[in-house]
Amino acid sequence: MKQPSALTDLVEALRVLPGVGPRSAQRMAYYLLQRERGGAARLGHSLERALQTIVRCRRCNGFSDTPVCDLCESPQRTAEQLCVVETPADLLMIEQTLAYRGLYFVLMGPLSPLDGIGPKDVGLDMLMQRASDATVKEVVLATNFTNEGEATAHYIGEMLQARGIKVSRIARGVPVGGELEHVDSGTLAQAVLDRRPV
Amino acid sequence: MKQPSALTDLVEALRVLPGVGPRSAQRMAYYLLQRERGGAARLGHSLERALQTIVRCRRCNGFSDTPVCDLCESPQRTAEQLCVVETPADLLMIEQTLAYRGLYFVLMGPLSPLDGIGPKDVGLDMLMQRASDATVKEVVLATNFTNEGEATAHYIGEMLQARGIKVSRIARGVPVGGELEHVDSGTLAQAVLDRRPV
Repeated sequence: MKQPSALTDLVEALRVLPGVGPRSAQRMAYYLLQRERGGAARLGHSLERALQTIVRCRRCNGFSDTPVCDLCESPQRTAEQLCVVETPADLLMIEQTLAYRGLYFVLMGPLSPLDGIGPKDVGLDMLMQRASDATVKEVVLATNFTNEGEATAHYIGEMLQARGIKVSRIARGVPVGGELEHVDSGTLAQAVLDRRPV
Repeated sequence: MKQPSALTDLVEALRVLPGVGPRSAQRMAYYLLQRERGGAARLGHSLERALQTIVRCRRCNGFSDTPVCDLCESPQRTAEQLCVVETPADLLMIEQTLAYRGLYFVLMGPLSPLDGIGPKDVGLDMLMQRASDATVKEVVLATNFTNEGEATAHYIGEMLQARGIKVSRIARGVPVGGELEHVDSGTLAQAVLDRRPV
């Protein structure tokens, strides 16, 4: 049987979502058309609206619906600390901890020389400019603890220290609530090396 | 931090998709805005187009972009068999087997008296009318093998037989490629009871 082309298109379009393969896309399309037409219409409008209004903040490079985002403009945040993250989603994760009151700089992903992604592509020139600003006292590196994230943190750290800027890296170690028996040995080794006085 | 409202809306709207909770919705929204703006725009348009063009076929109740669907109009299908399924997705599953060349009737889900879903709500009057048509020689019941699907098949079967119409049910048994060791005992019991001469 030939499916209506609008249905085939919708299945194909749903595959753009992360973690959605051909079968889930099929299931989603049928589900929406059969049971959630209202929700599907809302989703269509929300996509359109988000694409129209969400831009990158001119200062931190995070998501914003104004040229400079609320967070960068907030008088309650200290400009003395600047936290470097790989993506807007990482910024949100750190915000949700409520443990950080400084500002942010969002890279466009980690450095990845093998994929041709160099310092310019992730906005390091923009970061250096901001960090050299006299108000910034400390740069907190919060890139991922993957190979690429670690390399990126190392590279940025060296550049900043060469300019006399204080740099820190978020801590590696045993997760809160974690049992030593279930922690991988690399993490445990790091936790021992990075032990702190009580 | 306050997220831009268009972003919060998009996260909320994505939760309409089956199997997508708050965290996946968050991840999808950020992914689309950061890496797949083109794909997100296509998805928005596909949703709109599908909602505008896809209706229920007047004859079989399946999805169609014309009042009567291609399958119901096809001269290559025999009108002597009528297969009853619960949803348009089930119709697609049976079509993909290429094992059936008759026509379909799509219920609007199974009968579910506890949820107040009775014979009228699933279109049984429409089904009876079609099945009583002189051309239909056999009705194949292909509702799910869940309690509700089984009850629905039983109910429809009784009604059709009372009118002298031949009724069959798709076979239960050990799946193709299945090992007896890994089949649940209910299925295996049914496979023994429904054994067929070689």
